[in-house]
Amino acid sequence: MADAVVRSSTPARSKRTPAGGAPTAPHSAAQAHEPRINIQQVNDLLLGKWAETRREARAMVKDPAFWQVEGLTVAEHRERVFSQLHLLVDAGGSRRAFPKEYGGLEDNGANIAGFEELVLADPSLQIKSGVQWGLFGAAIHQLGTKKHHDRWLADVMDMSLPGAFAMTETGHGSDVAAVGTTATYDPETEEFVIHTPFRGAWKDYLGNAAVHGRAATVFAQLITGGVNYGVHCFFVPIRDDEGNFLDGVGGEDDGVKGGLNGIDNGRLHFTQVRVPRENLLNRYGDVAADGSYSSDIASPGRRFFTMLGALVQGRISLDGAATWASALAMTIAVTYGNQRRQFDSGSGTPEIVLLDYGKHQRRLLPRLATVYAQAFAHEEFLQKFDGVFSGERDTPAEREDLETLAAALKPLSTWNALDTIQEAREACGGAGFLAENRLVSLHHDLDVYATFEGDNNVLLQLVGKRLLGDYAKQFKGKDAAALARFAVGQTAGNLFHGAGLRQLGQAVSDFGSTARAVEHGLRVEQQHELLAGRVQQTVADIAARLRPASKLSKSEAAALFNENQTELIEAARAHGELLQWEAFTDAIERVEDPATAQVLTWVRDLFGLSLIEKHLAWYLINGRLSAQRAEAVTRYIARLCTRLRPHAQDLVDGFGYEPEHVRAPIASGAEAARQEEAREYYRELAASGNAPVSEKSLHKK
Amino acid sequence: MADAVVRSSTPARSKRTPAGGAPTAPHSAAQAHEPRINIQQVNDLLLGKWAETRREARAMVKDPAFWQVEGLTVAEHRERVFSQLHLLVDAGGSRRAFPKEYGGLEDNGANIAGFEELVLADPSLQIKSGVQWGLFGAAIHQLGTKKHHDRWLADVMDMSLPGAFAMTETGHGSDVAAVGTTATYDPETEEFVIHTPFRGAWKDYLGNAAVHGRAATVFAQLITGGVNYGVHCFFVPIRDDEGNFLDGVGGEDDGVKGGLNGIDNGRLHFTQVRVPRENLLNRYGDVAADGSYSSDIASPGRRFFTMLGALVQGRISLDGAATWASALAMTIAVTYGNQRRQFDSGSGTPEIVLLDYGKHQRRLLPRLATVYAQAFAHEEFLQKFDGVFSGERDTPAEREDLETLAAALKPLSTWNALDTIQEAREACGGAGFLAENRLVSLHHDLDVYATFEGDNNVLLQLVGKRLLGDYAKQFKGKDAAALARFAVGQTAGNLFHGAGLRQLGQAVSDFGSTARAVEHGLRVEQQHELLAGRVQQTVADIAARLRPASKLSKSEAAALFNENQTELIEAARAHGELLQWEAFTDAIERVEDPATAQVLTWVRDLFGLSLIEKHLAWYLINGRLSAQRAEAVTRYIARLCTRLRPHAQDLVDGFGYEPEHVRAPIASGAEAARQEEAREYYRELAASGNAPVSEKSLHKK
Repeated sequence: MADAVVRSSTPARSKRTPAGGAPTAPHSAAQAHEPRINIQQVNDLLLGKWAETRREARAMVKDPAFWQVEGLTVAEHRERVFSQLHLLVDAGGSRRAFPKEYGGLEDNGANIAGFEELVLADPSLQIKSGVQWGLFGAAIHQLGTKKHHDRWLADVMDMSLPGAFAMTETGHGSDVAAVGTTATYDPETEEFVIHTPFRGAWKDYLGNAAVHGRAATVFAQLITGGVNYGVHCFFVPIRDDEGNFLDGVGGEDDGVKGGLNGIDNGRLHFTQVRVPRENLLNRYGDVAADGSYSSDIASPGRRFFTMLGALVQGRISLDGAATWASALAMTIAVTYGNQRRQFDSGSGTPEIVLLDYGKHQRRLLPRLATVYAQAFAHEEFLQKFDGVFSGERDTPAEREDLETLAAALKPLSTWNALDTIQEAREACGGAGFLAENRLVSLHHDLDVYATFEGDNNVLLQLVGKRLLGDYAKQFKGKDAAALARFAVGQTAGNLFHGAGLRQLGQAVSDFGSTARAVEHGLRVEQQHELLAGRVQQTVADIAARLRPASKLSKSEAAALFNENQTELIEAARAHGELLQWEAFTDAIERVEDPATAQVLTWVRDLFGLSLIEKHLAWYLINGRLSAQRAEAVTRYIARLCTRLRPHAQDLVDGFGYEPEHVRAPIASGAEAARQEEAREYYRELAASGNAPVSEKSLHKK
Repeated sequence: MADAVVRSSTPARSKRTPAGGAPTAPHSAAQAHEPRINIQQVNDLLLGKWAETRREARAMVKDPAFWQVEGLTVAEHRERVFSQLHLLVDAGGSRRAFPKEYGGLEDNGANIAGFEELVLADPSLQIKSGVQWGLFGAAIHQLGTKKHHDRWLADVMDMSLPGAFAMTETGHGSDVAAVGTTATYDPETEEFVIHTPFRGAWKDYLGNAAVHGRAATVFAQLITGGVNYGVHCFFVPIRDDEGNFLDGVGGEDDGVKGGLNGIDNGRLHFTQVRVPRENLLNRYGDVAADGSYSSDIASPGRRFFTMLGALVQGRISLDGAATWASALAMTIAVTYGNQRRQFDSGSGTPEIVLLDYGKHQRRLLPRLATVYAQAFAHEEFLQKFDGVFSGERDTPAEREDLETLAAALKPLSTWNALDTIQEAREACGGAGFLAENRLVSLHHDLDVYATFEGDNNVLLQLVGKRLLGDYAKQFKGKDAAALARFAVGQTAGNLFHGAGLRQLGQAVSDFGSTARAVEHGLRVEQQHELLAGRVQQTVADIAARLRPASKLSKSEAAALFNENQTELIEAARAHGELLQWEAFTDAIERVEDPATAQVLTWVRDLFGLSLIEKHLAWYLINGRLSAQRAEAVTRYIARLCTRLRPHAQDLVDGFGYEPEHVRAPIASGAEAARQEEAREYYRELAASGNAPVSEKSLHKK
């Protein structure tokens, strides 16, 4: 079926201008005599540093063998995705992150970029690949040492050793430090005993655990000599070559899920399972034969976060995949909205296309702007990751910043994906609800992105705590009055550059040249000031409210923190939004074509103003916007939507998707063809003289 | 599997207080020494006038034969739901709306109430029932006359005649007046010729069309004597007894959908299909043997809307089902949030339950308040519907009001359902993503409620136009200055009582007795003033902006309207929210138990203040709230969340769901049992003296 879709469709780009009709607004930039974006340049900009890898991956997934097939049973879908992982190995797609000595390419940025694009084929494929190579393989690679790499990495890469990443437990998700599974060292036999002490400590939600996994990287409390050294990771074989559980290992299938049913999630439990001492992945902590523990990192807390930080790539790839999936949803909805006609405008013209409705523009275009912002922020994030993991800029501070960035951006993009895909689905009406048009299953699959690899709210709270910490550092020893004076003169960039993407003091320039007075107060500098100011003040306000905590009992202090939790999460969100806005602004500076820069500046403004509008009450309450200017924000957004409407198709075409990536019949041009057929029918009927007259015209006689 | 779930679970109510632990906030009203709701009284209030029917339906669907089974193929799910319809017939569940002479009960309100509850079993069952009896059957009943009733109603009721409701076309969804299918009268043979002139005119998304339907009620342009009398409905047989299409009829399967896969949606097309003249469902318009057309309703527009209005029950049942599904999601998330522990509070206490986190309360409790508001608004709506359809209060004005109410409430409750279910799913983390816990498939199934039976935005625009019309009527002949003076003194209730639920001038009383100064300005009268004032002013503002339209060309006027479309939809939403708030407030007045009234008043305040907070910028810009008071809104919401936290379980228990309705293992008490097992393990370990010491304690030595 999927095959037929592509055969019957022609490239989306050729369908940009709907045939016929009398639009109420210009549909193309050419009609509007306005600057147009250079689609190719925008595509280069969006695909970023690893554009070549992305294009390779996209070319690969044009093969229908990689596509999601709707309506499969869970078992069929699982087997299909499992076989796709082998295809991926054959195509060389699994080796980019791994060391050259095992056949890898040691190209971390390219690795993530390539994986992200798999979301276009089937999000289950993206995530199952992530489980095998980004989690199970990465644990061996990043937490293990040469002996582990020698023994397992080649098999991991070529899928002869499929594995599960056994971190989460039924009783503990985001709070990894509290897992119940134990790994107790037995110096007699030089083995670790892996054990699940109670039902809540079963490993749960693990991809590859229900069917395909032969081994697992198991996170457990390392106990030796009567001391618990905290969570470490162990390589534990779980199934024999026939797929039967090994002695002491048991498990359950997690069954049907809300999406991603191409992945065999399951549960694992261990009853006194013995593994050799060498199976401890010992890069950050080791146990000698006699049971003595050693680590280069003295602080148990820092050691734990260093280990988790080595696995940050999961969050990065989710940020990217969520962004590319949102881009796909926007491509489908905007293309359909440009073709689908419904209702006449009341002006006696033919029915108008959906995207000419004010509300339809308002639904789609700010979300399209957000996808652009996410893509640019993600690209900078990915480059930062590559810098750290390539060793070029690998310092503890950089690693900590990377963690914070991941915790700030992944929640925003994964939530935005759900919002954007849902709005796209509703904007396509009943057609949007058919699985063949992709939007519903994109939503189903991406749903869990919001809570896995760190629950979004938990991640944002981490960011919030980091912001508070950075804020407090500035004022060590200062009294409250000095502190208040200090805060006034600061920008968010100054305060929080540590976790930011952009360098301090970087110039912000504006390519816009809008004339209307009302917009003057809402241009680039003001947007930045408003967005950054909100981060700064929110953090400062929370810090002030939390200041009494040091004089309170532990439980009172905890209660005080709890009272501020919602706002702390809001502050973190504001910080992430600022990062996205800054990345967008920086990206525009790299654009040479003035027309492209002009249009992208409007898109950036739409993004910035939509953020400001979302938090408009805050700006009003805090005296940062007058009522008059606040009112102008919404009007300005409406005007930007009108201005960008002729560019909508260009902007989604900038994502560079081909028909084999889009696949949705409603975005194939079929709708425009149906509209044209209907109009032709009515034209011929009218010309034939056989058209019935309307009852109304009868009454008028 | 589903069976096993219930066997292993104990009633949710007995699990109200989680065992052990050291909560940071009281978990039960008893602990808090506060007033408690009388759960039974609240349940009676929520179930409303047709409580008995609702309880009957709930008792019926405790039978696992009615339950949704996850992981079925589309074909299996369709057959299961088809067989469930027969079970429903056997249980007497299909006859409530139909005339007594055919074995019906002529109880319209009870009919809708009973159908709504089916959402607890499987939303596919609810909607497939709705297709058969609420659409296909209702079209014959409401649009047909005695000859049609005699011939088909009994067969419709007992499922010997399964049918499709063929209104929507591929090319026309919400714009029914523009359908392309024609029904041309041939006086020679006294037949109508049903014909599909082009691909866009294929009937589409029709339940029962892909497999089970034997006939369809087809909406088509009625053409006789060379005149098009607009859309009418025709009874058209489509399949023979073996399930093969009859001559001239063809179709396609809509395939896999985003949800509701127990329903066989499909497409139908007709090639010169002839049906007898009598197959025109002729209650509102008829064609004599000679081809002459007659109708009691002279205006083609009013006739069309009267016909559509006769089918309003679909929207009503969606409003109710969306509300009850949201209630189910809240029941699952609140119950789990009351048991699931994660992270310690940083105060050395054991891990705390999710619902003790400030953010978790903020995520769930305002949504719980919204479900209450929806339930009360729905009940009044349903009573109004019953009044009209029972003939007790059946006037054109009442019918028009009912239409407007349906168009105002259905969008709010169906969107809220998606928002609430999604938040509930995320609040349950990875467990929420497992199909066994119901939340994901509830979201999948209810997704389309937002766009079928009238796209939500299209419906709200209708409401907006009605509001504008009502507003304009007040000022006929008045000049602008008089108009402005007039507007100042009005309340929304005065202006828009026509479409409102409550009677003009009804007293609003407050059961709250809060002392804090800040809350004084945000109590019941002020909430009403703020909510009603926003409706009034928004409509007045739009009217003012649209006033120049009368002097513009048609296309300029259309463009002006289009510029205001987003705000008009916002005004309609505000109107719907006001109706919900008023219904909630009226419901509290019916509560006799003071403690129950007190708690429900807090819930109503939380609902009202959440609405005000959502639109806070509007209130600030328009000078209706000072910055100081606006800031107090958010603080007041936080305080209400804290205050209601001990009542959360009582409030979801008020929905009255039993384990067979909830079914989600995470809401069965299993989580609390796992937590207890884990704590017991650690207690015993500590007591044994064999517990490992922490590395940190080692460092301190």
